[in-house]
Amino acid sequence: MSDRKTALVVSAHAADFVWRCGGAIALHQDKGVEVTIVCLSFGERGESARLWKQEGATLETVKAVRRGEAEKAAEALGAHDLICFDLGDYPLTLDEAAKHRLVDVLRAVQPAFILTHSKYDPYNTDHMATMAFTMEARMIAQAWGHNPGEKVLGAPQMYLFEPHQTEQMGWVPSLFLDITPVWEKKRAAIECMEGQHHLWTYYTNVAENRGNHFRRNSGGQAGGRDCKYAEGFQAVFPRCVDELQ
Amino acid sequence: MSDRKTALVVSAHAADFVWRCGGAIALHQDKGVEVTIVCLSFGERGESARLWKQEGATLETVKAVRRGEAEKAAEALGAHDLICFDLGDYPLTLDEAAKHRLVDVLRAVQPAFILTHSKYDPYNTDHMATMAFTMEARMIAQAWGHNPGEKVLGAPQMYLFEPHQTEQMGWVPSLFLDITPVWEKKRAAIECMEGQHHLWTYYTNVAENRGNHFRRNSGGQAGGRDCKYAEGFQAVFPRCVDELQ
Amino acid sequence: MSDRKTALVVSAHAADFVWRCGGAIALHQDKGVEVTIVCLSFGERGESARLWKQEGATLETVKAVRRGEAEKAAEALGAHDLICFDLGDYPLTLDEAAKHRLVDVLRAVQPAFILTHSKYDPYNTDHMATMAFTMEARMIAQAWGHNPGEKVLGAPQMYLFEPHQTEQMGWVPSLFLDITPVWEKKRAAIECMEGQHHLWTYYTNVAENRGNHFRRNSGGQAGGRDCKYAEGFQAVFPRCVDELQ
Amino acid sequence: MSDRKTALVVSAHAADFVWRCGGAIALHQDKGVEVTIVCLSFGERGESARLWKQEGATLETVKAVRRGEAEKAAEALGAHDLICFDLGDYPLTLDEAAKHRLVDVLRAVQPAFILTHSKYDPYNTDHMATMAFTMEARMIAQAWGHNPGEKVLGAPQMYLFEPHQTEQMGWVPSLFLDITPVWEKKRAAIECMEGQHHLWTYYTNVAENRGNHFRRNSGGQAGGRDCKYAEGFQAVFPRCVDELQ
Amino acid sequence: MSDRKTALVVSAHAADFVWRCGGAIALHQDKGVEVTIVCLSFGERGESARLWKQEGATLETVKAVRRGEAEKAAEALGAHDLICFDLGDYPLTLDEAAKHRLVDVLRAVQPAFILTHSKYDPYNTDHMATMAFTMEARMIAQAWGHNPGEKVLGAPQMYLFEPHQTEQMGWVPSLFLDITPVWEKKRAAIECMEGQHHLWTYYTNVAENRGNHFRRNSGGQAGGRDCKYAEGFQAVFPRCVDELQ
Amino acid sequence: MSDRKTALVVSAHAADFVWRCGGAIALHQDKGVEVTIVCLSFGERGESARLWKQEGATLETVKAVRRGEAEKAAEALGAHDLICFDLGDYPLTLDEAAKHRLVDVLRAVQPAFILTHSKYDPYNTDHMATMAFTMEARMIAQAWGHNPGEKVLGAPQMYLFEPHQTEQMGWVPSLFLDITPVWEKKRAAIECMEGQHHLWTYYTNVAENRGNHFRRNSGGQAGGRDCKYAEGFQAVFPRCVDELQ
Repeated sequence: MSDRKTALVVSAHAADFVWRCGGAIALHQDKGVEVTIVCLSFGERGESARLWKQEGATLETVKAVRRGEAEKAAEALGAHDLICFDLGDYPLTLDEAAKHRLVDVLRAVQPAFILTHSKYDPYNTDHMATMAFTMEARMIAQAWGHNPGEKVLGAPQMYLFEPHQTEQMGWVPSLFLDITPVWEKKRAAIECMEGQHHLWTYYTNVAENRGNHFRRNSGGQAGGRDCKYAEGFQAVFPRCVDELQ
Repeated sequence: MSDRKTALVVSAHAADFVWRCGGAIALHQDKGVEVTIVCLSFGERGESARLWKQEGATLETVKAVRRGEAEKAAEALGAHDLICFDLGDYPLTLDEAAKHRLVDVLRAVQPAFILTHSKYDPYNTDHMATMAFTMEARMIAQAWGHNPGEKVLGAPQMYLFEPHQTEQMGWVPSLFLDITPVWEKKRAAIECMEGQHHLWTYYTNVAENRGNHFRRNSGGQAGGRDCKYAEGFQAVFPRCVDELQ
Repeated sequence: MSDRKTALVVSAHAADFVWRCGGAIALHQDKGVEVTIVCLSFGERGESARLWKQEGATLETVKAVRRGEAEKAAEALGAHDLICFDLGDYPLTLDEAAKHRLVDVLRAVQPAFILTHSKYDPYNTDHMATMAFTMEARMIAQAWGHNPGEKVLGAPQMYLFEPHQTEQMGWVPSLFLDITPVWEKKRAAIECMEGQHHLWTYYTNVAENRGNHFRRNSGGQAGGRDCKYAEGFQAVFPRCVDELQ
Repeated sequence: MSDRKTALVVSAHAADFVWRCGGAIALHQDKGVEVTIVCLSFGERGESARLWKQEGATLETVKAVRRGEAEKAAEALGAHDLICFDLGDYPLTLDEAAKHRLVDVLRAVQPAFILTHSKYDPYNTDHMATMAFTMEARMIAQAWGHNPGEKVLGAPQMYLFEPHQTEQMGWVPSLFLDITPVWEKKRAAIECMEGQHHLWTYYTNVAENRGNHFRRNSGGQAGGRDCKYAEGFQAVFPRCVDELQ
Repeated sequence: MSDRKTALVVSAHAADFVWRCGGAIALHQDKGVEVTIVCLSFGERGESARLWKQEGATLETVKAVRRGEAEKAAEALGAHDLICFDLGDYPLTLDEAAKHRLVDVLRAVQPAFILTHSKYDPYNTDHMATMAFTMEARMIAQAWGHNPGEKVLGAPQMYLFEPHQTEQMGWVPSLFLDITPVWEKKRAAIECMEGQHHLWTYYTNVAENRGNHFRRNSGGQAGGRDCKYAEGFQAVFPRCVDELQ
Repeated sequence: MSDRKTALVVSAHAADFVWRCGGAIALHQDKGVEVTIVCLSFGERGESARLWKQEGATLETVKAVRRGEAEKAAEALGAHDLICFDLGDYPLTLDEAAKHRLVDVLRAVQPAFILTHSKYDPYNTDHMATMAFTMEARMIAQAWGHNPGEKVLGAPQMYLFEPHQTEQMGWVPSLFLDITPVWEKKRAAIECMEGQHHLWTYYTNVAENRGNHFRRNSGGQAGGRDCKYAEGFQAVFPRCVDELQ
């Protein structure tokens, strides 16, 4: 375990970490935070429509392509580590073994904060299952009697990254993160996702519009901070501070 | 207008600022933030039962006592300024003139953040009226066409301080502030409120228990920060940040 | 002021108290509780379509008919008192004078509990205005400095009676009251409302179905209490008890 | 009053109808629905920062420019009528006279549906005040005893158009409207708003991304409808239908 | 697979489809929509109290009676198909095999819309489990990589039918369906449920009162549509439309 | 089965029943209600940090200590029975066998009411799992076809006891129970929890502050009931009553 500050992303499918927190990953890596990404699946069955329309597609070929894209994207973002759990998707198989594997990662990484999916998602039950799964794993990793002797996890914040169709998910951002300095990296990572061209513009629009929200919430035309691109996150737990801002 | 960072508290009745954010006031003053307190009323009719039980009590004598207590408490906290709007209470008279007066204060103070009551309070409609009133005044103060030429207000965060019976108010803290360094000052301010002895222990208990929440949310037994006393606040708007923590 | 237990109903329009809590009124009168009904208006403009379709209708003739129906209904229920504020409807004129008048009634009656409308009603803003108005009047009546010397109000529960289209109003019953013993009285009161025939069956159905809910929640087929007719109410404040049941 | 189907937009400030439902206006006009727009104010004080930064600006010059832009935009959308109430903004003066004026418009227009602001908006209290004001006016217009003899209003749906920062407003779209056929008109209307260049791209992004939501909710890659631009609306009341779809 | 429009009902227990959407089934069949009903269980353990009180009752005899009633009811409604999964009830056994079976039905039927239970039900966890199960199966059926080669499911709306005690379930109807033309069929189906006589009147009352809501929401006394019986449904997803109404 | 009134507590970990409803247990025992406590686990892994820091700790030694403390606490409260399911914690293993075991207890005890955890708890998923588990077991115990011949469970109220950090759990008390007469017993039980000293003061503060809430909600300075210590509970189901209070 390194002495550097660390963070952990738990992504249901291979591409989620790119669209939803690619900026946060690149930005924190630039600041010296080591970001580990866990992909629970490759999104091979449910998020690879274009690949399945190609002749001869099999689960293995689709997974291979998706894995390749995820690796390229993680590299484009400068992520410290990418761990593919390969649990299968639609639905994810979130069994005992998977749970302990995530607990092990949490304890090994000792993240200062965790990024994962929204609490509710009627379109994609894998997403909300991932959030619940991560919340449970965090609790287990905090238990002194779970694998006694290991370093116990503290109380890392959980940030829920932006889902598709936020309003239907009941997701409300509690903060906006300025990702302007790393936008080019996020866009490069987005462009690794060749099977989902239709989302490139979509998430570029999202980043631009969240930039507008950043500007407005930091003061707007009366002293607001300039910001071209941003990402939104919803904090699960209250923060502990020594000063208000 | 000073060059120092400033903050504004909007308190429905004379004592609210003591119980609910006395620690925040003292702490920020210690850090060089100038905190101005606006008391919309003295709580003369609705929160002075003990005084009214004394023979010969009149609105003026009750207000005088309450004003005195508020001034002593503000002094104990080291507050930069205490402004009493004297609007009457139960209910507050929140008319056009009062609104413009608060807008003027907002523009004069240019607070980095605002502290006020919760959004809902079925026990005390003055409290929720104060929150709505402050939210509207903040909007007016941001309008370039309101008293053109004056310095327009930016986008200060609104922090809703802790109401009595939090769960009934739908109030959820999004942060805990460590007020241990200034606890003695807050307790001294609390003890200025001679008519409300029954609340001294109550709000001391609250501060201790919020300290427990601070410790737990900062890591608990696995690296949590020590903290004896804390206050909780609910942020109304999303924050704008350059880094997650 | 009598020594008997008392209750207060605050009804936006003349007929609301019949449909929504006529059973509670009759039942408590039977138990020796004196129930006072305040009708803020006659529902003359907004709830008297049939009367307005008659030739020669004027505000005065409509109000007279509605007043007559309300009086007959109150009598059918055995209500202790019916006070018509005659504030006008659609919308109600809830000014300072009206507020103090309701505060005066609250102090004079000293109700053990208050019955009024739901918190939200997008169909009928008079209803939600009545709830907010009653909540504020209750607070003022509790203030020791409001008309000092008068007997101050305690902390009577507020029960929100059943609105039309409950789900759209966000109304959730926290209790069901068995009104079987007084059903005939409620039905008789309902039949006083000659201009709203279409609601007679509607509210009879409601009473029957709430009876089903009473049976089910008291044990259903495994020991549930028999009950043919019931009314539902949502409590605003927590109860204080010496035993759980 | 025409025999054609009609609709009514109630916009707090001069530009709101453009960003938030310009597509709906143009689309329905194309379908033969007469759309009347009520602007309660010009947004002269609160939404004209750029104009106020120009030397010599006065309330009258700013209002004149904003009125001109609103008229040009309404024309670009082909709106049937634009009515400026000129009530002042930040805050709107929503008095008795204004209320009756809106009731008169509702009765004269007899809209099949109404478009207005979201229920909650902590950034802009004018927006939520407009929604509450419209809801109340709708109720009054439905009262048979209000100006007896006039044609009474039915039960037009209220659609809440998209606010800025939807998640903070608790706004959830219940439908997406395909505005692709009239996008050029909406964009032309947007470009009439010369003082708010920074919002042109913002609302173009919104329209594109709502188009994505339309495609996905109509079937996505498995038979979804093509749609390039859409607007989202939240219905206040349940619909009445003869068939599910 | 037929060329006709289809719909799918997913009912936790044998009788749910009758009480909650019998009208919708009969109505759409009359309109040429083929409605398939999946009963996950017969409600043999939890909803057959009367049968269990008879001497000699066994799981098999109870299931046989309940199956017979369900078949008669489906016939009375003219349903296209009734599929009994026979998973056991109280609780339902919603395992992997059951899930794939429902996915297979979804793909075979290709419903234009799905009818199922409410999201929450503290009285009957089978009901909410059924909703979650259906939501997940819908997602799997949409995955191109699940059983590649099969026709992938589009994005059928999910309509949540009316639970018992709607307010406790947080169920809010977003539409009312006029079932007057098929009321006799629904009533006939209801009368097939011989073990639950106490619900016959209950659900007749519900249908009448929802008819009242239909009339009111379509215009009430000012042009509302006549409707004697209706059913309410809550849509899970936003609709995609070309025109507002 | 005794003829006396009974109650059941379902506690996720060994100490929960002490902090959260120790007063209710002691109070009802004093009133002749037999209270049975089910501890699903000892909290051996997740709530025994201090024990794990001791040299030589093993799962068995930790469980033994925790069991001892739980037994002493139950005795201090005078509880009728303490049943330890020993399912393991962090996470609880809530399998089929455990479920049937709880159903058996419910049927054997036939509680008039059930006390358990809050519906939501992002810090401790064992707590919310326990609530869901209890809700499902209650439903099964009500099924006439589950183990036919046994006495079927009625419809006991579920009271959710106070979680740690109530606001984050969405827990809202619907009643306060005066536990002043048994406070010494609760405090004695608290002092049995030697591994969690830091919570002794915390839950004493909670009891004192809930006492304040009791006084205020029963009338405050105008006739409120004296009460030094109280516990809060949230009712899941509506109550069935013959009179309002």
